Amino acid sequence: MNTGAEARESIRAGFDGPTSGLAPGLVQANLIAVPVDWAFDVLLFTQRNPKPCPIVDVLEPGQVESVLAPGSDIRTDISGYRIWTDGELTDEVADATSAWETHPDLVSFLIGCSFTFETGLTAAGIPIRHQEAGRNVPMYRTSTACTPAGRISGDMVVSMRPIPASQVAEAVRITDRFPAVHGAPVHIGEPAQIGITDLDSPDFGDPPVINDGDIPVFWACGVTPQAAIQASGVPFAITHSPGKMFITDEPEDTYRR
Amino acid sequence: MNTGAEARESIRAGFDGPTSGLAPGLVQANLIAVPVDWAFDVLLFTQRNPKPCPIVDVLEPGQVESVLAPGSDIRTDISGYRIWTDGELTDEVADATSAWETHPDLVSFLIGCSFTFETGLTAAGIPIRHQEAGRNVPMYRTSTACTPAGRISGDMVVSMRPIPASQVAEAVRITDRFPAVHGAPVHIGEPAQIGITDLDSPDFGDPPVINDGDIPVFWACGVTPQAAIQASGVPFAITHSPGKMFITDEPEDTYRR
Repeated sequence: MNTGAEARESIRAGFDGPTSGLAPGLVQANLIAVPVDWAFDVLLFTQRNPKPCPIVDVLEPGQVESVLAPGSDIRTDISGYRIWTDGELTDEVADATSAWETHPDLVSFLIGCSFTFETGLTAAGIPIRHQEAGRNVPMYRTSTACTPAGRISGDMVVSMRPIPASQVAEAVRITDRFPAVHGAPVHIGEPAQIGITDLDSPDFGDPPVINDGDIPVFWACGVTPQAAIQASGVPFAITHSPGKMFITDEPEDTYRR
Repeated sequence: MNTGAEARESIRAGFDGPTSGLAPGLVQANLIAVPVDWAFDVLLFTQRNPKPCPIVDVLEPGQVESVLAPGSDIRTDISGYRIWTDGELTDEVADATSAWETHPDLVSFLIGCSFTFETGLTAAGIPIRHQEAGRNVPMYRTSTACTPAGRISGDMVVSMRPIPASQVAEAVRITDRFPAVHGAPVHIGEPAQIGITDLDSPDFGDPPVINDGDIPVFWACGVTPQAAIQASGVPFAITHSPGKMFITDEPEDTYRR
């Protein structure tokens, strides 16, 4: 039994929720697909910004099946897509097939997702507050500029997990072992220093649950390329909707060093 | 005093030898420059083959100064260049300026070089036989196919260092700390298994000096993209000549993890 294929099948059949907790133990990925004449800029942007944009696979122009998920179709196997035109969000759809047909040369980038290291945190007894509350992880735009590449630039987006102060060091140690899925935190405490003024108002995902004694810990987030698409006015792009990831067949352990 | 700038200045002034031992402690890099319409394929090839092709910098189309070497000019600051046309080596020159003018949109990729970790090996008391003999490191084509990307494919090229059997494990441990400059060996002993039939006849560099009790240890080599250019018939490319590297201002420690 292949839980990755099953999860993708259920999404193809109509499941349209967030994917946290689906196919446990398998890597989930962010999607950004752009026309081939923008592909070098995007790949260079990911190469220069590996913490927010760790590549787990790149599909060549027009390809729709990832080597990480045999039998998959990137146009149908994500539970929600965003369509971007000239940097503006112009549509959200459950099936991207017709959007793809308008740009048959799309190059799809699959980018690691911090869902992958949450399993490791949980195994170490570190609470994942948003999971406990049945919410999506809170994500924030920061004032930290990514390194530009060609026509692509933008600020980093981070995900935040409130961690008990006594377990912050352990959370760093564990996530540092997963460089392909954002790795160690980029910032710990002091949200204002990275331009986050109100933790209760995330730019993506759900508001956080923060207990007494928790420290806000920030990881680079795979939604960063979406912010860069906006900031850079990319003429056309298809991405996943935040929290709705592409589920691969790759075990999370593959990405532990 | 900046030894990187000084080394580049002496090359610009006419030094045309190999660069091993120049500007000790600073990272040296392999060069591959291709027209912009081949840049995505090459960048994807490096992304899919990080051991032979670890990127340390990518210069955008037409740029000639690397951020790793302020004031440098990639067209003049390498002590020997190879010019490739339709996959054939068509010229070797000491100054690439006029070749560059024929393709002003060249994208230059700087790829980590195993010279960088030799300092670490030496510091641990591990002999570097080719350095002791005043030779260039021997490099071999292998039968190990790289993962193709778009129009680019080819077999891996490796460098070989004979290491005393008692120190092989330590050599692995040390070089594994330098993933940005090829990292741990790809093969230890048994050259025939990777298609190398005669260690005394390397495809690039000089024949090896192998002492009794030495084991041949193979590292992925930054000459790999040159073999891929040949195998793929890339219409135009400029690379460094083997052993003649681009010297940056980056301390080797930057690339240790």
